[in-house]
Amino acid sequence: MLKAYVDLISQPSRALYIFLKFTQIPHTIQHVALRKGEHNKAEFLKINPFHTVPAIDDGGFLLSESVPILQYLCNKHNIHSLYPKDLQQRAKIEAFTHWQHLNLRYGGSILFVALFSQPASGKMPIDEKSVQLGVKVLKASLERIEQIYLKETPFLSSDSLSIADLLGVCEVLQVHVGLGMDVLTHYPKVAKWVELVRESVGASIFDDAHSFILKAGEKVRKMEVSVPKL
Amino acid sequence: MLKAYVDLISQPSRALYIFLKFTQIPHTIQHVALRKGEHNKAEFLKINPFHTVPAIDDGGFLLSESVPILQYLCNKHNIHSLYPKDLQQRAKIEAFTHWQHLNLRYGGSILFVALFSQPASGKMPIDEKSVQLGVKVLKASLERIEQIYLKETPFLSSDSLSIADLLGVCEVLQVHVGLGMDVLTHYPKVAKWVELVRESVGASIFDDAHSFILKAGEKVRKMEVSVPKL
Repeated sequence: MLKAYVDLISQPSRALYIFLKFTQIPHTIQHVALRKGEHNKAEFLKINPFHTVPAIDDGGFLLSESVPILQYLCNKHNIHSLYPKDLQQRAKIEAFTHWQHLNLRYGGSILFVALFSQPASGKMPIDEKSVQLGVKVLKASLERIEQIYLKETPFLSSDSLSIADLLGVCEVLQVHVGLGMDVLTHYPKVAKWVELVRESVGASIFDDAHSFILKAGEKVRKMEVSVPKL
Repeated sequence: MLKAYVDLISQPSRALYIFLKFTQIPHTIQHVALRKGEHNKAEFLKINPFHTVPAIDDGGFLLSESVPILQYLCNKHNIHSLYPKDLQQRAKIEAFTHWQHLNLRYGGSILFVALFSQPASGKMPIDEKSVQLGVKVLKASLERIEQIYLKETPFLSSDSLSIADLLGVCEVLQVHVGLGMDVLTHYPKVAKWVELVRESVGASIFDDAHSFILKAGEKVRKMEVSVPKL
């Protein structure tokens, strides 16, 4: 049976987790606690020498990187609703998944490391230059989503949910829920889209996936880290 | 007919350019000079509101992001040699194309901006912190390629050329040719792979695509910018 290696603190891990619960592909979840360094242990490196989550072991076929994992599983299990066979629709979904890395994901990750991971591991003071860069990249990314991706459709690439939406929303909520940094008020289409994705996969699956990062967010508030406004 | 919008100073533009010459898909090349700000002009934004190259207009279907463009063209024109239909082989190729963004591409781009684009536009002194970060990320990326991707196969994902190799080699040569920074001596498998990809697509196509960045490299040497060693 498919084994999915995840840490729910990780945005793409949550996207895979939600995907598996939503599609009901038979699987087992293997938790890899990044905070305990489990991704660096020899046992996990046999699964993924890149040390990253998510990763899968599908009957001996090992694969890392969230997007190819989602695409592979959609292809294998004929889940064309989330990853259509039509070449143009497919390409539009893929375009978002590649764009996000050095935009939405980059901006959010800089902020999460600077305002959560580093303070949580005792590293202070907070690197203000990183925070400024993170805010700049994140704002530009949210503007692009608001003004281009969601210009004419309720989901990123079309009128229906795709793997791009699962990945994108998990990135947005990393800062919104994880850092308690309001990234939705100024972006009404983004806010509506996040809620629509939550409803589409089912609120219970969605909220379950985000319960761990919600706790992390409470930790940030206890540390009294000053979180910037967008 | 397919229109491909490229600037040959850009790594993924070169990958698309080589791909089109190699596969002989009928196309016209539209040069978009980033240094002249042509990617910010209204005319180009109608093609790609994200301001980036490469982009394509395939009979009215507009697409940005190099990887989806290559995948779309392979799917459309049945070029399965470069992007196989087998799900596992395909997933391995896709895994590299996603991994590269925040690794090989990120490291090389930081260095290219710090040591070429900024000095060329008159911005001095060089930001040493960026250079250090770029070197660190690039070294780690080259080690992963040497030790993991090329561990058992001459190409990144298998025994034959794929779109992943075209993209990867163009990233590596951005610093090697563009900055004149030797990134091959310490990585013998990477060096062999670069040459193998060049031979596979044909040296004349490959060298033509890199002639512009080679000139840029000469400009760096004239500026007497100090390029770090790996």
